[in-house]
Amino acid sequence: MDLKKYIRDVKDFPIEGILFKDITTLLIEPKAFNYALEGLYNFAKNKEITKVVGIESRGFILGGALSEKLGVGFVPIRKPGKLPSKTRTMEYQLEYGIDKIQIHEDAILPTDKILIHDDLLATGGTINAAIKLIESFGAEVSQISFIINLSFLNGLDSIRNYDVKYLIEY
Amino acid sequence: MDLKKYIRDVKDFPIEGILFKDITTLLIEPKAFNYALEGLYNFAKNKEITKVVGIESRGFILGGALSEKLGVGFVPIRKPGKLPSKTRTMEYQLEYGIDKIQIHEDAILPTDKILIHDDLLATGGTINAAIKLIESFGAEVSQISFIINLSFLNGLDSIRNYDVKYLIEY
Repeated sequence: MDLKKYIRDVKDFPIEGILFKDITTLLIEPKAFNYALEGLYNFAKNKEITKVVGIESRGFILGGALSEKLGVGFVPIRKPGKLPSKTRTMEYQLEYGIDKIQIHEDAILPTDKILIHDDLLATGGTINAAIKLIESFGAEVSQISFIINLSFLNGLDSIRNYDVKYLIEY
Repeated sequence: MDLKKYIRDVKDFPIEGILFKDITTLLIEPKAFNYALEGLYNFAKNKEITKVVGIESRGFILGGALSEKLGVGFVPIRKPGKLPSKTRTMEYQLEYGIDKIQIHEDAILPTDKILIHDDLLATGGTINAAIKLIESFGAEVSQISFIINLSFLNGLDSIRNYDVKYLIEY
């Protein structure tokens, strides 16, 4: 199945000059959703993954379904102030300014083998912060999966040492 | 399975005096996650649901998995400015001020039979806005499901005319 035909291009979102890759047109088609999930599952099965970490908020959609399919727990990474219990925070550099992500302090164990899922790899800022966050617990990042890799932004270069999988490349 | 024992109480979140019901401790336990999903699935199967609408962002986690299990598409309802293509907006009253939710204009058809999923029913403000949004397309809201109903907030009173299901009640 050519998943690309289920991705909608939206011009000038979120700002002028950006051609946004919209996955909602994939999620709304049951066969495409299922095909994408099966693809991510096939990448991840037999890797002894112990938890799926999904990055807020599009990473929750296939991330949750993937954790269920793998029979492991799901852990959300969220923007500051969203997780209710004690959190651990990682800062990362944006083009202009600093952003932060958080995870619950008791959600990751040093023995965990983590799959991090997000919908899209762009420059890699968020995923690198997520990796640092997971590794700060002594846990292993066993796989990183995306629906889309925007390869012209070279995000992959910063995570070459990991098992990175994606379904669609631009 | 007693799902309540997987819910964590967090005091004074998001503001002082609120005892927050944290579902991340359920999501991280594969058996509890699976049991919750099976419960939601059993409520929804054989109802001829055509799409699952999940409310940002905790509603994406089980909502996505549920749509996959039902073999139907997934549609996100999000806060303003998050959906990239043309949207339809619904405002709703908060205690102090107004909030808004959005859905993609082309995501719902008049013939759709929609399951709306969110993690928690409190006073019902968000879910009522979501219902109005779906019904504004001429579509039917066939089921509304939550993980948790905070029954002391009486949100259920405002959606009595719908098929409302939940797994845990406080």
